[in-house]
Amino acid sequence: MQLRKIKRALLSVSDKSNLIPLAQGLHDLGVELISTGGTGRALQEAKIPYTDIQAVTGNPEAFGGRMKTISFQIGSALLFDRERDAQEAQNLKIEGIDLVVCNLYPFQKVQEAGADFPTLIENIDIGGPTMIRAAAKNFKDVAVLVQSSDYEGFLAELQSQNGQTSLALRQQLMAKAFNHTADYDARIAMRMDEELGKKSLRLSFKQGRSLRYGENSHQAAGFYRENSSALSLADIRILHGKALSYNNLLDVQGAVDAVQGLGGQAVAVVKHSNPCGLAKSMDQRTALEAAWSGDPISAFGSIIAFNQPLELKTAEFFQLDAEDRSQRKFVEVVIAPKITAEALEYLQQHKNLRVLELDIAGLEKAVDYRYLSGSLLVQEADLALYNQQESVTARPFPSDEAAKGLVEFGLQAIKSIKSNAIVLVQAVNQQQYRILGMGAGQPNRLVATKLAIEKAKENLQREGAEDVAGILGQCYLVSDAFFPFADNVELAAQAGIRYILQPGGSIRDKSVIAACDQADIAMLFTGLRHFKH
Amino acid sequence: MQLRKIKRALLSVSDKSNLIPLAQGLHDLGVELISTGGTGRALQEAKIPYTDIQAVTGNPEAFGGRMKTISFQIGSALLFDRERDAQEAQNLKIEGIDLVVCNLYPFQKVQEAGADFPTLIENIDIGGPTMIRAAAKNFKDVAVLVQSSDYEGFLAELQSQNGQTSLALRQQLMAKAFNHTADYDARIAMRMDEELGKKSLRLSFKQGRSLRYGENSHQAAGFYRENSSALSLADIRILHGKALSYNNLLDVQGAVDAVQGLGGQAVAVVKHSNPCGLAKSMDQRTALEAAWSGDPISAFGSIIAFNQPLELKTAEFFQLDAEDRSQRKFVEVVIAPKITAEALEYLQQHKNLRVLELDIAGLEKAVDYRYLSGSLLVQEADLALYNQQESVTARPFPSDEAAKGLVEFGLQAIKSIKSNAIVLVQAVNQQQYRILGMGAGQPNRLVATKLAIEKAKENLQREGAEDVAGILGQCYLVSDAFFPFADNVELAAQAGIRYILQPGGSIRDKSVIAACDQADIAMLFTGLRHFKH
Repeated sequence: MQLRKIKRALLSVSDKSNLIPLAQGLHDLGVELISTGGTGRALQEAKIPYTDIQAVTGNPEAFGGRMKTISFQIGSALLFDRERDAQEAQNLKIEGIDLVVCNLYPFQKVQEAGADFPTLIENIDIGGPTMIRAAAKNFKDVAVLVQSSDYEGFLAELQSQNGQTSLALRQQLMAKAFNHTADYDARIAMRMDEELGKKSLRLSFKQGRSLRYGENSHQAAGFYRENSSALSLADIRILHGKALSYNNLLDVQGAVDAVQGLGGQAVAVVKHSNPCGLAKSMDQRTALEAAWSGDPISAFGSIIAFNQPLELKTAEFFQLDAEDRSQRKFVEVVIAPKITAEALEYLQQHKNLRVLELDIAGLEKAVDYRYLSGSLLVQEADLALYNQQESVTARPFPSDEAAKGLVEFGLQAIKSIKSNAIVLVQAVNQQQYRILGMGAGQPNRLVATKLAIEKAKENLQREGAEDVAGILGQCYLVSDAFFPFADNVELAAQAGIRYILQPGGSIRDKSVIAACDQADIAMLFTGLRHFKH
Repeated sequence: MQLRKIKRALLSVSDKSNLIPLAQGLHDLGVELISTGGTGRALQEAKIPYTDIQAVTGNPEAFGGRMKTISFQIGSALLFDRERDAQEAQNLKIEGIDLVVCNLYPFQKVQEAGADFPTLIENIDIGGPTMIRAAAKNFKDVAVLVQSSDYEGFLAELQSQNGQTSLALRQQLMAKAFNHTADYDARIAMRMDEELGKKSLRLSFKQGRSLRYGENSHQAAGFYRENSSALSLADIRILHGKALSYNNLLDVQGAVDAVQGLGGQAVAVVKHSNPCGLAKSMDQRTALEAAWSGDPISAFGSIIAFNQPLELKTAEFFQLDAEDRSQRKFVEVVIAPKITAEALEYLQQHKNLRVLELDIAGLEKAVDYRYLSGSLLVQEADLALYNQQESVTARPFPSDEAAKGLVEFGLQAIKSIKSNAIVLVQAVNQQQYRILGMGAGQPNRLVATKLAIEKAKENLQREGAEDVAGILGQCYLVSDAFFPFADNVELAAQAGIRYILQPGGSIRDKSVIAACDQADIAMLFTGLRHFKH
């Protein structure tokens, strides 16, 4: 355990929260408190006795507070080796300090408050990091607290250990301290670069865990939580099933993104990051059935996300208890903001199914990073749907509420599909939309259009639709980018498509619109491309 | 300019390189040198006079060297405001120090050398960061040098400015100093976490520049270079054309990855990150033609990478000077390890073509990062091709050199294509391979197979091949993952395919092999999946 009694503690905090209970607790344990000016005044008000740091250093607080703690006396008291250097310390009249409680000038806070540059500079703490780092280096004998939320637990530990700390605790505090100073200087460095017109970026991740492997079994892999994230994909709660794999996590992101912008009851069925099924309805079970019907073959082994708490009735769609095993619908992952107890019990019948909870709506995704060899692409997330809705054809694109609903659903869908992407969306009724067919990831847009139409036809035929072309004539075909040529329109016209959405903006828009007019197709320009790679 | 004369400098360096010329130069400019122990001995040997730091601090070097510089005297000399605090400094007998030259205990070096934990702890510098950060905070008056490679330029500046530094220089040095301490503590923090069995990760990027926009015009974007990278995609040299866009950079990565593992003359034609064309030959022009022929429609507007210096004869394939404009082959980006002067001159005819140089072979890509909402996936790059080559069918898969060449080419190709992926590769002759057709990014593998076969047929027909099925019978069909069912084999058999490569490992391998035997197809199990998302 290598227990060390805390006899003297140095308190120098910028954030005074939780200070008094800690100081009182330390005092009650017989610890001598040393304190700097502001911290000392707080102790005085609480009638907790302390030694002013000037009495220890022999120096005044000087230069507008820039010099308070930096001194041979404090540095030595924290750094000397309690065994090796004991005699030397005695000769030099250095008495050890066994605990540092310090938090730093709030550089981040004043930065976020929009402080001017001189104020920022004044808020770069020099003495604080010196004490923290000195104490941390000498963790063999010294403890360090850098966060006010840690005080209570620390004091409890101390009280239970007769005023002593264990080596394990001191080592944990040490690691935390170096993370703290690393974060602090990272923020300062970025801001100082910015002031010089240089852009630098420091990202920090923790809670890393090993994954069984990466995209393939010969690739070692891990998963980390971003330090600064309020809510992270790493916060997923696994209610049932094995640990998530690398590919699961990629697909979960795709599924979560796909349902995130949708209201009502939304369900995404994802395979290889692409939603091969997506639907929205007032009823969850109906939405799942509709999403599943977008590609009932690929849906096997898929990742499925719900934007609302998952109900038993919905989960029963998977028929996990069907006697005929071929009726059982195996999926890899089910994720929802909440899984009801009954749904969970039902899903647990399948050993290999992963059942996850995550506050999907709360997941912020303002920024997107993409790592390329030795470099990083950064971009704002693609959050907008359109910046105009302009009917550009002789046949007007409808603008009633029903049409708007399907337009928005179609744009949400296309935003989630990898480029080049085409999706056909259907309003099964006023309150129910689904992907009827989609084409993803094609070098050639025409092939994506073909894939979407073929899948839609296949789905309708399987469902026994009598008037396939008639139904396709009610669907909206959505393109993630403009049509470079009229060929896509001609292909769509042949299949009976009557409504097309696209950003517009090609030099050949005229001929594309002419092809629409020729085929009596209504076309809407949205003004916004949705490439996704 | 806010010039500041350097009167006193503090030298305390762990890395002694370039020290003496700097010290001599400072001395010649009349600067008083203050030095710690080891640095002082180096000065003494070089017969450069200096003041021992103990004479300034009034304290001994103590505790095995843990205490050398931390003191009220040094802290004050660096931190006091030369205007506001001048009188106070005089009262306290503090004389300013105007320059700190300091590099830190080599924590990283001893870590990489495999030092034990106590040695690592001893190599955490406390005094150094204190001096560096104090000098940096007070950059209004004080300069700081943290890297020996900066000494020479700094001295030259000083000599040209009559021993003075400008505010601009001091501010640059300040930003560098905080980057240095941020890097230092980042490394310590990660190592200390590791010691506790915790995994944390800190990534650092610099040289950030804004891109016109991200994947789409409504997304702001930037591109950064990774600090620790020896060679980065950000090191691309643009010889001609506009700045690279976000999507260009994504595609360049795809194109570079696709040619990187290939010998001979290799060319990749990339659209939306996927190589729709890839070829290898002994002749570069031939390779380009073969790669282009993989999808001559999608190739327009593509990104093209070469693994060897680009020659004029190759570049002329684009026919940028054709009188018939429809003959001109427009591509977005051409990248090669080198662009010959003649090729560059030719390519410059096209204003919008970007011509890039990068040492593609030298680009290391051992680790892959993937950012998900508030989290990070990390994996080893997919570098291996196969871990076995097992013929599993009645008809044996050939194992001669020619077959091996095409197998390796096919695996290189499939590794670069997004999943689910199928590629058909052809040996045009013993020394020339190409992608004949590929299917990428499909939720359903069967669709990928269909796409690859259709594209291959289309290409052969366009080329006027007489015996399409006969040629397909010589091609290798490569799957990035195992076949879950025999249907893919049946589809391939119908098209006349006789050779299939796949990892194997499905519970239905038996029925897949049986389908091969039925169709007299030879199948090779490679044992390695190549998912890419």
